[in-house]
Order: sequence, then structure tokens, then C-alpha cells
Amino acid sequence: MKKTLASDNYSGTTPEIIEALAKANTGHQGSYGADESTEAAIKMFQRILKEDIDVYFTMNGTGANVTALSSVCPSYGAVICSSAAHINVDECGAPEKFGGFKLLTVEKDNGKLTPKDIKPFMVNLGEQHWSQPKVVSITQATEYGTVYTCEEIKEIVDYAHSQGLLVHVDGARISNAAVSLGATFKEMLVDTGVDFVSFGGTKNGLMFGEAVIFLNTSLSENYKYIRKQGMQLLSKMRFISAQFEALFGTDLWERNAIHANNMAQKLAEGLSKVEGVTITQEVQANGVFAILDRAVIPAMQEQSPFYVWNEQTNEVRLMCSFDTAEEEIDAFINKLNQLTSVTA
Amino acid sequence: MKKTLASDNYSGTTPEIIEALAKANTGHQGSYGADESTEAAIKMFQRILKEDIDVYFTMNGTGANVTALSSVCPSYGAVICSSAAHINVDECGAPEKFGGFKLLTVEKDNGKLTPKDIKPFMVNLGEQHWSQPKVVSITQATEYGTVYTCEEIKEIVDYAHSQGLLVHVDGARISNAAVSLGATFKEMLVDTGVDFVSFGGTKNGLMFGEAVIFLNTSLSENYKYIRKQGMQLLSKMRFISAQFEALFGTDLWERNAIHANNMAQKLAEGLSKVEGVTITQEVQANGVFAILDRAVIPAMQEQSPFYVWNEQTNEVRLMCSFDTAEEEIDAFINKLNQLTSVTA
Amino acid sequence: MKKTLASDNYSGTTPEIIEALAKANTGHQGSYGADESTEAAIKMFQRILKEDIDVYFTMNGTGANVTALSSVCPSYGAVICSSAAHINVDECGAPEKFGGFKLLTVEKDNGKLTPKDIKPFMVNLGEQHWSQPKVVSITQATEYGTVYTCEEIKEIVDYAHSQGLLVHVDGARISNAAVSLGATFKEMLVDTGVDFVSFGGTKNGLMFGEAVIFLNTSLSENYKYIRKQGMQLLSKMRFISAQFEALFGTDLWERNAIHANNMAQKLAEGLSKVEGVTITQEVQANGVFAILDRAVIPAMQEQSPFYVWNEQTNEVRLMCSFDTAEEEIDAFINKLNQLTSVTA
Amino acid sequence: MKKTLASDNYSGTTPEIIEALAKANTGHQGSYGADESTEAAIKMFQRILKEDIDVYFTMNGTGANVTALSSVCPSYGAVICSSAAHINVDECGAPEKFGGFKLLTVEKDNGKLTPKDIKPFMVNLGEQHWSQPKVVSITQATEYGTVYTCEEIKEIVDYAHSQGLLVHVDGARISNAAVSLGATFKEMLVDTGVDFVSFGGTKNGLMFGEAVIFLNTSLSENYKYIRKQGMQLLSKMRFISAQFEALFGTDLWERNAIHANNMAQKLAEGLSKVEGVTITQEVQANGVFAILDRAVIPAMQEQSPFYVWNEQTNEVRLMCSFDTAEEEIDAFINKLNQLTSVTA
Repeated sequence: MKKTLASDNYSGTTPEIIEALAKANTGHQGSYGADESTEAAIKMFQRILKEDIDVYFTMNGTGANVTALSSVCPSYGAVICSSAAHINVDECGAPEKFGGFKLLTVEKDNGKLTPKDIKPFMVNLGEQHWSQPKVVSITQATEYGTVYTCEEIKEIVDYAHSQGLLVHVDGARISNAAVSLGATFKEMLVDTGVDFVSFGGTKNGLMFGEAVIFLNTSLSENYKYIRKQGMQLLSKMRFISAQFEALFGTDLWERNAIHANNMAQKLAEGLSKVEGVTITQEVQANGVFAILDRAVIPAMQEQSPFYVWNEQTNEVRLMCSFDTAEEEIDAFINKLNQLTSVTA
Repeated sequence: MKKTLASDNYSGTTPEIIEALAKANTGHQGSYGADESTEAAIKMFQRILKEDIDVYFTMNGTGANVTALSSVCPSYGAVICSSAAHINVDECGAPEKFGGFKLLTVEKDNGKLTPKDIKPFMVNLGEQHWSQPKVVSITQATEYGTVYTCEEIKEIVDYAHSQGLLVHVDGARISNAAVSLGATFKEMLVDTGVDFVSFGGTKNGLMFGEAVIFLNTSLSENYKYIRKQGMQLLSKMRFISAQFEALFGTDLWERNAIHANNMAQKLAEGLSKVEGVTITQEVQANGVFAILDRAVIPAMQEQSPFYVWNEQTNEVRLMCSFDTAEEEIDAFINKLNQLTSVTA
Repeated sequence: MKKTLASDNYSGTTPEIIEALAKANTGHQGSYGADESTEAAIKMFQRILKEDIDVYFTMNGTGANVTALSSVCPSYGAVICSSAAHINVDECGAPEKFGGFKLLTVEKDNGKLTPKDIKPFMVNLGEQHWSQPKVVSITQATEYGTVYTCEEIKEIVDYAHSQGLLVHVDGARISNAAVSLGATFKEMLVDTGVDFVSFGGTKNGLMFGEAVIFLNTSLSENYKYIRKQGMQLLSKMRFISAQFEALFGTDLWERNAIHANNMAQKLAEGLSKVEGVTITQEVQANGVFAILDRAVIPAMQEQSPFYVWNEQTNEVRLMCSFDTAEEEIDAFINKLNQLTSVTA
Repeated sequence: MKKTLASDNYSGTTPEIIEALAKANTGHQGSYGADESTEAAIKMFQRILKEDIDVYFTMNGTGANVTALSSVCPSYGAVICSSAAHINVDECGAPEKFGGFKLLTVEKDNGKLTPKDIKPFMVNLGEQHWSQPKVVSITQATEYGTVYTCEEIKEIVDYAHSQGLLVHVDGARISNAAVSLGATFKEMLVDTGVDFVSFGGTKNGLMFGEAVIFLNTSLSENYKYIRKQGMQLLSKMRFISAQFEALFGTDLWERNAIHANNMAQKLAEGLSKVEGVTITQEVQANGVFAILDRAVIPAMQEQSPFYVWNEQTNEVRLMCSFDTAEEEIDAFINKLNQLTSVTA
């Protein structure tokens, strides 16, 4: 299939990852994480973040989010999140089914929560009829391609902690956020006081695999059972951890993320010059949200497949990836200009 | 790590699989199964089994079993299985947690159910206080390395169907069973009337990946939602399906399984000649169960790591894999003879 | 405790119910519903509604709602409801926990859904990432004391059915709605095409007990197991059914509901004449919502306890019951007038 | 219906309970437990057991067991119990569904566990693949009408605590056990070190209602949410607590239990003199298990309905209740003698 702007998981993986997998394929290794690659990948994360963390690998993002949240939020608890959050919209009710808890959602145009959004939920605490707020889950970068600054994260964490809430980061696109901010993972996650993270690999170029990282290690005691019961324990675990080592133990994560973000910038810049196009979200990571003329959408989707985000408003989502080509962006803008001048 | 007899998932994967992954890594593909590899892998299974099946790929065996069973067994239902079944023993309660149903277990020395074992559960049908039996789940090859004949499977299916029960096969080692019986997958699963299968890949040499196959397609209507809600939907699905194509679209599955089974035979033969060793299960697939002299176990585990199955009886489980080397078996037997002659 | 305006479940029960319980207490009866009272109560509902229904008694309203919804909505499904719905707000996440499904909520000022509110959810049908809408649940009378007309219910049902959705009525205050509309239960529930109902008893004067009634009997096949698994099966069932017989087999339900509604009207009338009081919802059943001067709330709560509904706006909820006394309403209004004239 | 030997829940309730309900029916009371009767009933339990307990009322026995166990046992945990336990056999999988945990069962002829039965489960602790044992649940009196001595309970508790396990007592027939032992509830539950109890009311003569009592109050912190989410919170709670006060605040519980136990003794004595009858369980509470001649069972069931416990062995269960009449027992034995002499 030709390149698309449909999703950062339409991409495959990078040669480095294939290589890492081949390299990890040597003889016998303990299964379920008792292997050398997993040990090494955990050490790598300790270097990147801090010594005192607990790292667990899972198979996909839904699995990371749901098992992580379920391990700290009781079934009578609630997780506060943006209404656009992946856990709310794109996981077919897995959080509710597996965790049993309630999602309390906030409608935010840019997908970013603030302490002010959380506050209204801090009522009826201790009241047996009400799901009890336990966790705030934010997505970094958000589903709208926006990025929390480290200060914004810290403000959320500070408020959450003052209210007895824990903070989870759904970091499916954590690398895109880091390069966008020019911040290290440590600055973004450790220094801000985040409690636990779904640390994304797939959208940053892995074949598959995510990591659940507890920065607050008092939370992780029983996670291993929840991961297993949540069907997220891979037997030949080395094949996840070796990928993580290859991605984050080198600058591959950064190169991939920078490229994807740059392509999004280029795309946004191009779009902004086309008459009638409205960019609807600040472009801070690898996604561009824009309103196109309804008439041109089908032809543009033929040029480079993408999803219509909002059928009512003709807002579309254009995702760039580590393998998005500059020429593809150019061709896309050219095509759009062409169509626009025709219809204009 | 040196080779072990610990588990068939201590092995890595075969070069053919790495190659297939590399080959699948070309450009963009639709995610979540909308890709060419998945289409091809499904067609392959249709050739192997029959046209009218529904095939879904999952990430691991627990995920395949639990989502498959949960999609056909209501929460007030029950699944009848051997007490040694993986779903009962090794999945940390995932079936109960995700499916909500009850496992009704039968203690069988060789892990193989018969209609006679199922019959006692067929009481109190329609009685609201009792979990209602809905599915019989058998493991092929069993957790004890034994194998159901096609006739035995058919007898179970016939009885089950006569009672309104569906039949599931946990086929984590389905290839080992097929080569053991000299039967095709079609003969073993389709001709016997099995309803749905967890079709194993990992223990037969894949890096990761299992398939849930509905031979009775009236059961699969809602499975895709259950797979997603069960956190088993991989985004870059092609990387599972390409592996399956490489394994079952060639004779790789057969070569792998034959080798593993042969090594088990060789190992059993060697063991049977050692004084004081009792082989406790018929060796029909790739596992050997044997009682060793307690005194020699630690040294033998140093020779080739393995698990003690039963601490009371000193029964050990020795698993062979596609990559078990003949010399390893020889060395193991030699070492055991050596230790035995010393202690004798 | 003196009379309150806090909740219609601060009331006890009526002498007729105590009498019915005493009368049902004769000798042995089959347990779990195999008793004469239950048979009689079911027949009574068949007379009131229609012949072809399935009636099951449960212990409380949360139990009725959650088991009823869970018996028809799969875990990957979604139930569309008002954001003020009891199932969304007041059941501590029991729907999510037990049913596993998602609630899709609509913010409506008066708590009443319309087809237009449902329509936006009818997207992404068949899409595996999204919880699939299966049921619309409306509350009659609503949590805001408003009442759907029969026409409004029929419109919802017609739209829902056209979309393949089922319609559930949370009828915790179904009797208040019926007398408010001057409609029979048959007109309100059967003629409109509603599929299943949580038919309320407690708030209409029972000691305890609710009924789950399937008007669409194709839905009830497995409900008995779900009721048991949902911990809602009473052993000495006759003590629920005898209450229902006493309530709905006579005009007791009507007298109770008329009285409660009349008291609400009287209260609203009185309030509307007090300066500075705003009635915020149409008073159609037994509840009055009004904004009071913040300064007078504590003293008024001392006069007759009630709940503040919205701390921000000083909106309070005043609930009347079958045993609310006219003098109590008079005293409440007098007191409020007194306080208002002082502060004015 | 005439009196039966079918179940202690075929009985209704005693006049004292009806009276207590009528008496509790005075004016308004806070709902959901914020009422005077509930306060009084809790104090009563504190007098009977000890000061430092937490008492919660639920609606039925399944609800008490499942919510209590779920509040202390994580979903990846396991509850060890007799295979005959009500939680294993008679709750339609509610423990698995709501708690998500696994039941590890022991087949015991008399339904009584010992430390020796628990020990084999204390393996693979900390192993992520295995459900982790967390609770031992014993039934007092057991489902077979046998009774643990206080010493036997203490032995179980001591062993359990030494292993980090908590002990739950399913006390559906706790009163029958207490009078059987001549022990106080304190001696049986507090002095033995039991952690939490489903304290039975219904089978001892209540109309409905059970209590979950935490003797180990460190366990109860979040129970109130679990009770609500488990659909066990009654709105007009006073109508449960008033019953408990009437039962255990007087000697009513004792009179009821003594009578039921005495009738069982009388029945057993009579049966033991009939040729061909084998009493299969020690008669220690209010149930008699006996093997009857298959030929006489239908006629005897006509005399006094009862359940066949085991269709294979013709073992029947004969339950006595607080309202079982002496003449009924006499008539039953006479009839059996009559039939036996005819067939002899």
C-alpha cells in the first residue's frame, strides 16, 4: 500500500528494530520476562528516568492503559480523563469491562485537562453511591496532536496529589511530545511527579510493544498479576524488550519522533496557505487537524488515505509517522491546491 | 542462555519467521487487520481447514483462550475442562475475571477428557442457582504431553453436541498433536466437528501470535468486539499474520513439530533405560514427564534447566522444542546415567 | 425522625403493605419464586400490562436496572442515557462493573432524551474499537421530576427500534409518572413499544422490592441466571411479590402517587409565590427543584431536611412522598416566607 | 402449602419479625443505613461480638458472601473452600463474575476443611501465572449439616494467618451452629480469630436480610462502596436492621435455632430406627442427610417435600426449620415405617 496520512500505526517498523529482533533470537532465554533483553531494557529505562522505577512490558496500548489503570483504581473508583481520551473512545469499553471503574470525562477542545477541569469531580467524596475519583489520566501528546508543557503536567499532578488522586500518562505518543517540548522524559514525567505511564513504543516505530512504568513504585506491587490476568504477558518477552532497547537505548526514538513531527509541521504549513483550509488544533506533535472543503475530501483521500474526524464539520485528521516522506507531503499539498483552484 | 528442557517458549523463533517479519515490513498497510498479510493468512487457513471459517489473530495464548471462550460462553455459563488445563491453572484467573464464567474441572491422570467425564456435569440444567454448562474445552496436545486421537475428539464432540455444548480446542501445541497423529488439521478439527480453536503459533516457533478460528461460523459474529475489549487486537496486525503465513503456509510448522516430538521420543527412550526413572505419561507430543531420583534433580537442572512438576513425587517435566539439539538430549541422558551409577 | 423533603425513600411503608406481609406469612412456600404470591403478582402484572410479558422480582432499584440492562446489553455494548440518570450517577459504577458496558450520556436540562439526542451516537456501528450502542435507557419520571408523555416515549422507541436499539425504562417513579399523565401503565409502556422496564415499588410505598418486566419476551430467556448471578434473587420471594400484589392489585399505588404528586404541586405553588425563589424544573411528578437564597437553606433544612442538588447554583431538591403531610408543606412555605421577609 | 423438609427458606418468618417491621415503620428515617434501627442493630452486634467491629447489612446470602469476599480478595486472588460450599455450588458463578477471583475447592465428605486441606494450595506464591490464595472460606454450619468446633475453627484461622490468608465464615446457619456447640457467637467467631463473617438471618427466621461483619476492621475500609456496587444496599435499610435487632437482641434466634436443631435430631433418631435407612452425615445442626430406599422416595416427598441430594446414591437432604412441627416429623417417620414394612 502507498504511504498514508491515516494513522501512525499504518507504518511498519524500522530496519533497526528488525535487526534487534534478529539479534535477540539467540538460543534459549527464560520466558515471561526472565531474560537478558528484559533486564537490559529495564536498566535502560532506569537510566532514562530514574533508578527507583518498576517497568513492565505489555503487548499493546489498550493493554498497557487498561491493566495499569486497573491495578491502581478499584472497581468503585473513577478515572478522570478528556472525553477524547483513547481510554474513553477507542478501547471498546475495555477499561469499564476489565477495571469495572467509571470514566469521568471532560469535553476539552484541545484534549488537554487542567486542574480546573478536575475540580468539579471532587465532590461527594466518601459517599457510597458515587464512584470515587482515584486517578487522573492525561494523554501526552493528546489525541488532538497537542502537547502539555512540563509546567502544565506539574500543575495537574500537584492538584491531583493535593486531592489524593494519582496521575497516569497515556504516552502512546510520548516521544513526539518529548521532542516537541525539547524536554527529556525525566523532565516530563519524573520531575513533574507523574505516578505511572503507559510508555508508547508502537506509534514511535516499534513492531509492537508498550511499557507500563511505575514512577511511584508503591503502586506496582500487584501489577504483575493484573498484567497476566489482563492477558498482556508475552511468553517470549525478549522480543518486546529487545525492541525497546533498540528504540530508546539509542537515538532512534528521537529521530523517528523528530521526523514525524517535522512532517506534521511541513504539512500544516502547506495547508495553512491553501485557501479555505482551517487548521483546528495547534500542531505540536505528529498530527494535523484541519477542516477541508467537503468536495475535495474523497480525492484527497485517494491521494493519501486519512480519516475524517468529524463528519459534521469536515474536520480531518492527518497523521505523520517516522516514515512519512517529504515528497508525499508535497504531493498532498499540491493536489489540494490543484483541487482548490479548480473548485474556487 | 544454553538450551533448556524448561519450556517450549524458552526458544526464540526460526530464521524463516524473522525473514517473514522483515518481508512484511514494506510501507504502509491498514492497521488492525486490514492488511494484505492478514488477508493472505486467513486464506491459508481456509485452504488448510475449510472455506467457511472465521479467523482472528491474537497476541498470546491466554488471550486467545479467554477471548474465544468469553465470546461464546455467557457469564452464568460454565466451561468443562481438565483440572490440568492451561485455562484452569496457568492464566491467573483470567477466564473467571474476563468471562465471569465458572470452570468445572475434572481430575484426569493423563489430562484427557472423555464423554464419561462430562456427563456428571449435565445436571440441574435450567436451574437458576447453577452455572450452566456451555462449552467443553480440551487441550490438544494436553498439558501432560498426551494426544487425543481424532476418534476421541469426535466422541467428545458428538456427546457435547448431543447435550447442547460447544467444543473448544486449546491448541497451543496443535502442531505437535497433528504430527503425532499423522493427521491433518482438517481431520483433527473439521472432520471431528470441533466448534472453535485457539490455534497455537508461539510454541511451534513463532515469535508471538495465536489465532482464534471459528469452524462453526455462527459463533463468531461478535468476536471482534470481544477481542478488542479483551485487549488482544494488535495495531500492526500484519506482523502476526505474516508469521502465521510463514509457519503454516509452508512445511515449517511440520518440521518444527516433528523435530520437537522426535526429541521427546529420543529423550524418553534414553530415560527409560536409566535405572530408577519412571516415565509417567505416554510420550505423544513434545513433552516428557518422568519421576527422577530426588538426589539427582539439582545437578540435572544444571545440565539442562527444567521444571519440577510435582514436588511430592519428584515428577519432572521435560519439554522439547523445535530447536532442541540431539547432542543436548544425549548429554542429558549421559549425565543422568553418570549420576545414577554413582548414587546406585 | 420528623418528616423530610429529602427523599421518597426516607418514608417507611403503608399499613397495607405490613398487612400484606403478615398475610403472606402462612406456612411453607416454595422459595426463589415458586410460591403462590409470586404467581399471583405475575398474573396481576399481566392484567395491568398484557398477557405476554415476563416478570421477575428483584430487591432494589440498582439491582433491577443493572441486571436488566446486563441481560440484554453485551459487555462491548453501550447504553445511551441522560447524564443525570440514576444508572450513571447513583449506582457507584455498578452498571460498568457488572455489565462491563459503557454508558453514553447526554446532558439534558430536564433529564429527558429525544431521538435527536440519540442520533449522534449512531456512528461507527460495526467498528471494533467502539462500544456498540444497544440500549436507550430513559427514566420515567426523570431524576428531575419531569415526565415523558406517551408520545415522547413512542418517538424514542420508534427511533431506537429503527436503529436496532432496545428501550429500557427505569421506572423507579413509574407510578408518579402514570398519575401525572393520567395514563395507564399499558398506554405508557406497552402501547409505546418499550422493551423492558425496571418497575418501581419502593419509592411508591413498598418496604422494598422492584420488578424487572420484559414486555418484549424475546429478551428474557436468560434473565433468571443474570438475576441470580447479580445477587438479586430473594429466597423468601413471596415477601416481595405479596407487596407488589397489595400495591398494584388495588388502587394503593395510585393513591400513594397522587398524594405525592399533589404535595409537590402544592409545594411548588407555595414556593412560586415566595420572592427570590426560582422553580427550575416543570413539576410533573413528586419532586420540586428550586433555587433558594443561600442564606436561608440551613434554616429550611432544619425545618424539613432536604438535599442541595447543586452547590454552585443553590438549587435544591424537595421530594414529596406518599406520607408527606399538607401541614408540613404549609409549615415549610410559612417558614420560608418568614425567613425571606426578614432577609428582604 | 403444607410444611416441608425441603429447605429452611421455605419457611416464612416469625410473628416477632412482622411486629418489628411494623414497629420500625414510623415516620421518616434516613435511608441507606442512616437510621435509628441500623444504629441500634450495630450496637447490638457490638455487645454480642465485641466493640471493635464493622457491621453492614445486605439483602441476601449470596450478596453477603460475594460482596464480602470481593472486598478483600483481589481479582487475581483465590478463595479456598469446600467443593460443597454455597459460594461454589449455589450462586450461579456470582463470586467469579463479581469478584473475578478463583475458587480453589477441596472435596470433603463432611464439608469441613482442615489446615491439611489448605496446605497443598500454598504453592507457587508470588508466581504471576497462578491465582494467589488470599482467603479461606468455611461454612458454619456446613452445607452437610455438620458443625466446626471452636477448636477446629481456631486451627484453621491459626494456620491461615500463618500463611497470610484471611478467614471468612459463611454463617448462613451460624445460629444453628452456635446452639449446636453451646458456644456464644463471641467464642465461635471472635475468640477463634475469624476475620469476617456473612452473618445469617434468613435461615434463622428473618423475612430477609444478612449482615456482613468485619471482626478485623482493617478490612472494611472500602466495603461500603463494594456493597453498593454489588447492588446490596437497601434504601429503607431500617427494615433489615429492625429484623436483626428483633432476632439477635432477644433470645429469638436461639429459640428458633434450638427448635430447628431439635427437630433434626428427632428426625434423625426416627430415621435411624427404620430398616434400610443410612444417616450419612453427623446431625449437628438442622439438616439430616440420609440414604433412603429409592422406591419410597416419591411417596415420602408427597408426605413432606424434600430434595434428593444425590441421584446416584439416593441420598436425600431433610432440612428442619424454626417452624417444623413435631407432628410433621412423627408423621414422616410413620409414613416411612409404613412404606418400608410394605416393601420389606
